[in-house]
Amino acid sequence: MSSAATLAGPVGRTRVRVRYAETDQQGVAYHAEFLVWMEIGRTALLRELGFPYDRLETEGLFFAVSEASCRYLGGVRYEEEVEIVTRCRKVQSRAVVFDYEIRVGDRVVATGSTTLIALDADRRPRRIPDPVTRALRGSA
Amino acid sequence: MSSAATLAGPVGRTRVRVRYAETDQQGVAYHAEFLVWMEIGRTALLRELGFPYDRLETEGLFFAVSEASCRYLGGVRYEEEVEIVTRCRKVQSRAVVFDYEIRVGDRVVATGSTTLIALDADRRPRRIPDPVTRALRGSA
Amino acid sequence: MSSAATLAGPVGRTRVRVRYAETDQQGVAYHAEFLVWMEIGRTALLRELGFPYDRLETEGLFFAVSEASCRYLGGVRYEEEVEIVTRCRKVQSRAVVFDYEIRVGDRVVATGSTTLIALDADRRPRRIPDPVTRALRGSA
Amino acid sequence: MSSAATLAGPVGRTRVRVRYAETDQQGVAYHAEFLVWMEIGRTALLRELGFPYDRLETEGLFFAVSEASCRYLGGVRYEEEVEIVTRCRKVQSRAVVFDYEIRVGDRVVATGSTTLIALDADRRPRRIPDPVTRALRGSA
Repeated sequence: MSSAATLAGPVGRTRVRVRYAETDQQGVAYHAEFLVWMEIGRTALLRELGFPYDRLETEGLFFAVSEASCRYLGGVRYEEEVEIVTRCRKVQSRAVVFDYEIRVGDRVVATGSTTLIALDADRRPRRIPDPVTRALRGSA
Repeated sequence: MSSAATLAGPVGRTRVRVRYAETDQQGVAYHAEFLVWMEIGRTALLRELGFPYDRLETEGLFFAVSEASCRYLGGVRYEEEVEIVTRCRKVQSRAVVFDYEIRVGDRVVATGSTTLIALDADRRPRRIPDPVTRALRGSA
Repeated sequence: MSSAATLAGPVGRTRVRVRYAETDQQGVAYHAEFLVWMEIGRTALLRELGFPYDRLETEGLFFAVSEASCRYLGGVRYEEEVEIVTRCRKVQSRAVVFDYEIRVGDRVVATGSTTLIALDADRRPRRIPDPVTRALRGSA
Repeated sequence: MSSAATLAGPVGRTRVRVRYAETDQQGVAYHAEFLVWMEIGRTALLRELGFPYDRLETEGLFFAVSEASCRYLGGVRYEEEVEIVTRCRKVQSRAVVFDYEIRVGDRVVATGSTTLIALDADRRPRRIPDPVTRALRGSA
């Protein structure tokens, strides 16, 4: 009964190593860095799907984060290798929702979600082009 | 009928000016910076309440973010002055919830929320000392 | 015998408080943050001189850092108030050199220098407009 | 006639992709990020030499940056792959100097240098252990 638009979409996996610059004086990665990692996750997924985000911007499609949330389940240390699992949960004509699982080895250290809305070069809402929508739905 | 622990607590107001370093190539402040501003908001409130966070850490009380969320309602530009309104929504024995409204002039540009859990120097859960709890509840 | 262009120019003073996000696991502000503070120093000076940098960009004048250096003389801790003293050392037709002293109370914690070159909106070198040059030379 | 301590040491090469978070409103990577990349370069080199920096800290050896400088030769864009070539130029009993070349493809976009001093856990100067010194000199 669920529409194609709400079916779970493609999944991307990418890795980053925790930078010294990302640590704070508690000796773990600062919590705002997880949002940066999520962005690395979704842009890696877009690239894999054939739509590198830098090219989308060149073509006049800008994604702006309209909602972001993160649950932190454990600290991540300098030099640890972090895996970002990104899943496209929902695609609408002007918005996309991504879910994330952030892992260090077998340990899930955070889960999160972001909603992105599509803007044009003047920051006005616009439609996401059909090929991008289809790719994000996994029906390309 | 609501308990003291869930009543809206004290409110803090602080200001930051958007740094060039915080902008991204969309010409607005990068979305993860809002989490940094929320932290500036809550630590300014703690300082005002007589519990500067650096001193709390010295005394063995560490706050770690266990949940964070943000709704973005509009872009914020370089050099704009951002006001962070922080309200302590909930205080439990081992956790605190803060709500935030981020404004530029009359415009609300974001709302958000963070849950912090209390840890000791070894990153084990601990109780928040009573004087801190009372101050955060506004019943000091 | 020295020309106006090389005389020590106006001095600006501004303050920032060390953010938790700026600390690293050594418990001090991460060294790259000092470059961010220097930028806050020079843009505060420009604002004071009547040329807020956001307006300069709107008018087609972009400054890009072509050289930066910093000597670190002591660590700076979370919540410490940092004073950035910015002096315009040299103004040329297409470049400006600023010197910085970064202080915590009476303690000089760093000294630094940056060279900025003037670019147009297409990132090609351009002349700095005379009113800006004069203001930076302190001869406005 | 030059001593082993001043001979050019081992060279490391590592790569990072420019993150959206690293761009600024000029549409290029913010200049302070280059210092972060240099750190990624030298810690990658240390890891390759058998001395991962996280382990050095665990063993009580902390490196603090005492000088950093960078010459910027060209802008770097979002998603570009940046190569950091790190060379250990000089090793003294309590300090190390690294030189860096930052490249995008065939283009050198920056050169830089950092001096690091060795500290103990209380931030007092200390000797660098011989095995580390030897490895950095390429005479391990």
